[in-house]
Amino acid sequence: MIEYSYKTIHSLRYTKHRKDYNKFLIEGKRIVESALVCNANIDIIFCSDDFLKKNKSWVRKHLKKDATIKTIEKKTLLKISNTKSPQEILAVCDIPKQEPIKLTMDKWIYLDKISDPGNMGTLIRSCEWFGINNIALSPKCADPYNPKSIRAAMGAHFGVTIHTNTDLSIFKKTHRIIAADLRGENASTYKFPDKCVLVLGSEAHGISYQNLGYVKDFIFINKLGSGNSLNVSTAGSILIYLLMNSLK
Amino acid sequence: MIEYSYKTIHSLRYTKHRKDYNKFLIEGKRIVESALVCNANIDIIFCSDDFLKKNKSWVRKHLKKDATIKTIEKKTLLKISNTKSPQEILAVCDIPKQEPIKLTMDKWIYLDKISDPGNMGTLIRSCEWFGINNIALSPKCADPYNPKSIRAAMGAHFGVTIHTNTDLSIFKKTHRIIAADLRGENASTYKFPDKCVLVLGSEAHGISYQNLGYVKDFIFINKLGSGNSLNVSTAGSILIYLLMNSLK
Repeated sequence: MIEYSYKTIHSLRYTKHRKDYNKFLIEGKRIVESALVCNANIDIIFCSDDFLKKNKSWVRKHLKKDATIKTIEKKTLLKISNTKSPQEILAVCDIPKQEPIKLTMDKWIYLDKISDPGNMGTLIRSCEWFGINNIALSPKCADPYNPKSIRAAMGAHFGVTIHTNTDLSIFKKTHRIIAADLRGENASTYKFPDKCVLVLGSEAHGISYQNLGYVKDFIFINKLGSGNSLNVSTAGSILIYLLMNSLK
Repeated sequence: MIEYSYKTIHSLRYTKHRKDYNKFLIEGKRIVESALVCNANIDIIFCSDDFLKKNKSWVRKHLKKDATIKTIEKKTLLKISNTKSPQEILAVCDIPKQEPIKLTMDKWIYLDKISDPGNMGTLIRSCEWFGINNIALSPKCADPYNPKSIRAAMGAHFGVTIHTNTDLSIFKKTHRIIAADLRGENASTYKFPDKCVLVLGSEAHGISYQNLGYVKDFIFINKLGSGNSLNVSTAGSILIYLLMNSLK
């Protein structure tokens, strides 16, 4: 483990510094617990004295003997946290090494220039819940280790594999590529193939022009009311629900 | 129309001032368009000269002759906006008058102490899309006219009726009350009754203790993977999807 200054840890809120150190910060008991349960590479855990006192059985259950844990004052937690009212436990984790794409995996979600980190985090959380463990991100997506994405995913980062900077074309020979699009067929009655990639584009721009050619089927969620659109993480999660429930 | 100082308009980011003036601020072309299409009570529209030049046909199509529109400089837009990079059109709207609850309406969503305005806005957007036009909020919910809720709903506020500060018990004789809860039965196979209220509680606390007694059925979205939970607006939107698609 390297020695960190608090300034260094606080700098992990920026993509550049996360890349330089290959680390990201997680905050709060639920997210730290997910990291521990999933055996993520945690460098160091910071918490307040109060946290240790209030969570004795949690600490006994989840922290291994060789875990590096450092108690710090609340005002120091404030210095390293990304929020105005920090939780009483934080940890610095390694950004997982990029593994090669396993094309033998049946189900993929591909995020095409999703720039909102909150939506990205919510989608990662839905993927984990519904059992899609493989997520690929196009170039120019938000950074999945952005603090807002981490917060929205609520620990789901540790239960899935995230491949950044991935070209959709690598799936074209092995998987049926399906995209959410307003002009598509009704997703409720669509029969999802066994091996597929579900592509979700940004709310403002939809699927990238260069990716459209790889898409075999367009599907959409029927509008029964009068709205203009659904939030991308909402629409994506409903499609993930349909995809994973259509298999049973 | 009253005369506003820019300071007054900027103060509408706070609940207290929205209540004092009974007004809220909307930002961006899409949301302003929704307000215009739905004939919302708009007091005044502010936009930049640039916006008028770039959107001539939009202005002709959507703005009535008696609309009050004021062009202001970009730096003034910054002064009244709630965002760091404001869009080029903003408007001040009346908070709609609270109408009495119409128990003759079949389908309701009831938000039980949902405190995150972003989640609330996303749920309002999903309600409009799937055609649930009646939303009731418990006491201690986020304010639906909070700027984050407005932004997340993307204009859906103008397509639904929102009843704040509503007691769940008023539905107990006329509607079947259903709540999302981890201990519930599988929502995918649940048969939704014709007249029902779907209750969504906060992620941290679930359904309020005092409301539990009114709930007849608990339903839940099957976990097929390994996550801890779904985002409340994701889970709520999937249940709204199932509710409205089960009727067809």
